[in-house]
Amino acid sequence: MRRASGSRGSAPLSRRSLSHVGKDGAARMVDVSGKPATAREAVARGRIRIAASAMRLVRAAKLRKGGVVEVARLAGILAAKRTPDAIPLCHPLPLTLVDVELLPRSDGFVIEARVRTDAKTGAEMEALHAVAVAALTVYDMVKAADKTMTIGEIRLVSKSGGRSGSYRARSRLSR
Amino acid sequence: MRRASGSRGSAPLSRRSLSHVGKDGAARMVDVSGKPATAREAVARGRIRIAASAMRLVRAAKLRKGGVVEVARLAGILAAKRTPDAIPLCHPLPLTLVDVELLPRSDGFVIEARVRTDAKTGAEMEALHAVAVAALTVYDMVKAADKTMTIGEIRLVSKSGGRSGSYRARSRLSR
Amino acid sequence: MRRASGSRGSAPLSRRSLSHVGKDGAARMVDVSGKPATAREAVARGRIRIAASAMRLVRAAKLRKGGVVEVARLAGILAAKRTPDAIPLCHPLPLTLVDVELLPRSDGFVIEARVRTDAKTGAEMEALHAVAVAALTVYDMVKAADKTMTIGEIRLVSKSGGRSGSYRARSRLSR
Amino acid sequence: MRRASGSRGSAPLSRRSLSHVGKDGAARMVDVSGKPATAREAVARGRIRIAASAMRLVRAAKLRKGGVVEVARLAGILAAKRTPDAIPLCHPLPLTLVDVELLPRSDGFVIEARVRTDAKTGAEMEALHAVAVAALTVYDMVKAADKTMTIGEIRLVSKSGGRSGSYRARSRLSR
Amino acid sequence: MRRASGSRGSAPLSRRSLSHVGKDGAARMVDVSGKPATAREAVARGRIRIAASAMRLVRAAKLRKGGVVEVARLAGILAAKRTPDAIPLCHPLPLTLVDVELLPRSDGFVIEARVRTDAKTGAEMEALHAVAVAALTVYDMVKAADKTMTIGEIRLVSKSGGRSGSYRARSRLSR
Amino acid sequence: MRRASGSRGSAPLSRRSLSHVGKDGAARMVDVSGKPATAREAVARGRIRIAASAMRLVRAAKLRKGGVVEVARLAGILAAKRTPDAIPLCHPLPLTLVDVELLPRSDGFVIEARVRTDAKTGAEMEALHAVAVAALTVYDMVKAADKTMTIGEIRLVSKSGGRSGSYRARSRLSR
Repeated sequence: MRRASGSRGSAPLSRRSLSHVGKDGAARMVDVSGKPATAREAVARGRIRIAASAMRLVRAAKLRKGGVVEVARLAGILAAKRTPDAIPLCHPLPLTLVDVELLPRSDGFVIEARVRTDAKTGAEMEALHAVAVAALTVYDMVKAADKTMTIGEIRLVSKSGGRSGSYRARSRLSR
Repeated sequence: MRRASGSRGSAPLSRRSLSHVGKDGAARMVDVSGKPATAREAVARGRIRIAASAMRLVRAAKLRKGGVVEVARLAGILAAKRTPDAIPLCHPLPLTLVDVELLPRSDGFVIEARVRTDAKTGAEMEALHAVAVAALTVYDMVKAADKTMTIGEIRLVSKSGGRSGSYRARSRLSR
Repeated sequence: MRRASGSRGSAPLSRRSLSHVGKDGAARMVDVSGKPATAREAVARGRIRIAASAMRLVRAAKLRKGGVVEVARLAGILAAKRTPDAIPLCHPLPLTLVDVELLPRSDGFVIEARVRTDAKTGAEMEALHAVAVAALTVYDMVKAADKTMTIGEIRLVSKSGGRSGSYRARSRLSR
Repeated sequence: MRRASGSRGSAPLSRRSLSHVGKDGAARMVDVSGKPATAREAVARGRIRIAASAMRLVRAAKLRKGGVVEVARLAGILAAKRTPDAIPLCHPLPLTLVDVELLPRSDGFVIEARVRTDAKTGAEMEALHAVAVAALTVYDMVKAADKTMTIGEIRLVSKSGGRSGSYRARSRLSR
Repeated sequence: MRRASGSRGSAPLSRRSLSHVGKDGAARMVDVSGKPATAREAVARGRIRIAASAMRLVRAAKLRKGGVVEVARLAGILAAKRTPDAIPLCHPLPLTLVDVELLPRSDGFVIEARVRTDAKTGAEMEALHAVAVAALTVYDMVKAADKTMTIGEIRLVSKSGGRSGSYRARSRLSR
Repeated sequence: MRRASGSRGSAPLSRRSLSHVGKDGAARMVDVSGKPATAREAVARGRIRIAASAMRLVRAAKLRKGGVVEVARLAGILAAKRTPDAIPLCHPLPLTLVDVELLPRSDGFVIEARVRTDAKTGAEMEALHAVAVAALTVYDMVKAADKTMTIGEIRLVSKSGGRSGSYRARSRLSR
């Protein structure tokens, strides 16, 4: 498991808690009504592994008109905007940018999403949701050629703009 | 990469194609209008890795009232139903069952989704989408305690009921 | 509390169970994959109580162009169609009719919704959801004139077409 | 009918109007473009009446893992966020808190929702919508055991933060 | 105005009625519960007019990676699936194909959508909705270069599979 | 094609670009994170052409209770609020007003939408989307009486409040 280099990733256990679980153990939305709105950015990344033979088909098709990559990017952008509808305890945020990129590899794609907002809470769930849905969209389009695909390594890469300072994942994340 | 044991997973490359990409390279929805509706089932599985210290907080809270696990299950069920809205080229399906299970481990959760439908096409995207959103929901609720969580190993476990016969992932998938 | 006259309403306790709660106490979607699709209908009814002075304003406005009533009817129809998105464990159903009616009274409205479907499970939640959202829509439009409105008496009036036979609420329900 | 103790609840009729109905009788969205955004809170409450025998089943199940209560809470939170999608003339609001609580009674549940926002208009519809959908979700999960349930007494309990001052329902509302 | 060549387009006025308006003048959903499900197809077409200078920018960008055209196609496909959510009195349909095509012209695009379903009612609204949203998506992406764009000529081209026989628009529609 | 009279409509080509297409030709959301939020308004207009015989039916029905017009207005208002869900690269905006008007003509309707927001980017897509969905809703309700209807002339009428100054379409637009 990766370790975080940022100030919060290494917070002592005593300061950590499950913000979304109340004292009675019931799940709850965090109250952000008293927090100021600040400019924030979150970047998330993930992977979809595709068999080499299927990946050749994807790349051949992609060269012509965008195909798989373009559909997945769009699905990721739309997913980011719908995050509070999908993740029950997320707050609605006025997103100012959603950018999703798919980088082809011999064994699939690296997927990265960057989300910006001016809000009282961060946009990491939006970025992670965009990565996941973009990966699922690739899966959907390639599944006739490969049923063994795996989606994984979805995690937060960096986060800035909140009260708790910036965060950056410690390890050199493979791209 | 896992290899599939089913009949389609090992189809010769010449028979494989990207069903969702037309001859001109443009992405498209597959025409299923001529296919019969049959009873189908798909099972997908994934993982969220959580630092041991955070996982102890989750388990302590969970013991009281369901908390994290119950919210994630619900989010997964709702996500399965919204799959054609999230994955652009998916067909709308009349789902007859969505079941999502989270199994606690010392380093996170195994998440499994089972989806049934009577339809002209399979429900694997619904199962995979349910797993991904359930994992993201866990992430959301635990992120204040651990920023290094990773979501991964999301893949199809089995699929039955379609014209192409049943599929089962070859390897013993860790639970 | 009203008593039911139908066969199921008076089922002995030993035959009753919470269909949406599994043996482990976890909420779940009912598996309807083995059930046949049949023609079904459900009717639900409810009330919104409005102060007489505000109700006079509503009726005056309504006479001109439909106003409050027409908006509420539309909101109820749309809500019926979105029920599986709002009520987590509901199945998606191919609705063939949604009809919502608002009957003006001196102290508010009686709201009735009728929903039909050819499906493996009934549409009572769709009818109840339509009534509730139609009532909330009236509330929204009248709230500047009356903050003491109450929405209530939302219940199933009748249900037919399922395996368990027809149901009709026993008492003469006030209209 | 309850009377309100707040300043607006007793506004003289001459100052009252249907804000959502234009001079021509057509329904319309209220123009809030000129209003300042302020911190606001609304609390709503409602009831679902359940037969004692069915309620015993609910409580037995609930003690184990949350079941009915947890699903209803989540559905209510999600509904609050989707209010402008369900209630046609509602404005989209940046909610900063949604809290839904279900209190078990021998004959059902008291349901209460609290919503906060920093916005140009209040969040009472969000709170009322959350109560209604939480109640419908309980109904859905219990309906196999009791077809005579009734949802009711849905009303605004309090409201603060807007230009028109605070409002609190006059009577001691039963909890 | 174009005249229709099909059997229904020229139905005598006495046989025509507004199916979605009841005898009391209130809008309503048509009851299709008694109709058989049949295989149906609808094709719709429309136009977006773009200034020549802006269209050159679009075509230059399009040659590289799909850009505008691919995004508009996807938006149209997603819109077709969400039609019953957008058009209040539409029935939910199990779409089996949605195909959206954009043909570049010197002064904009011809947009065509083809939708198939096995259902009790036709899919013309789905096809028309897909055309409109695809056109709006082009507009959104080009609006920085041209504020004088116009979307128009959105109409049904053909329809088959329903009880009322096939329909085909009479005139040679410009492509 | 109409020419614009505003300052931006006549911007020299060298200053124009496709804001939603990146240097690599891929579609993208515009980054508005650095822009100030300002009060903005956009007005759009369009037409639905209806055969005279069908239009007589519409007007007869409309006189009674609003019918077609009221449903279309509501659908347009709801569509404006859902624009970022439908148009992939649109930002979510906190709309403060959506007003949709349908003006009957002997050969159909003129449809106009006015949208206000306090945001970092304009609301023209919201206004255009409202016009298009209102027109589609009229089409849906009238299609049993006329299959030759055409939706068209959807364009921006005016826009104000952004950094680029106000815009007003040059020609006297027919109403």
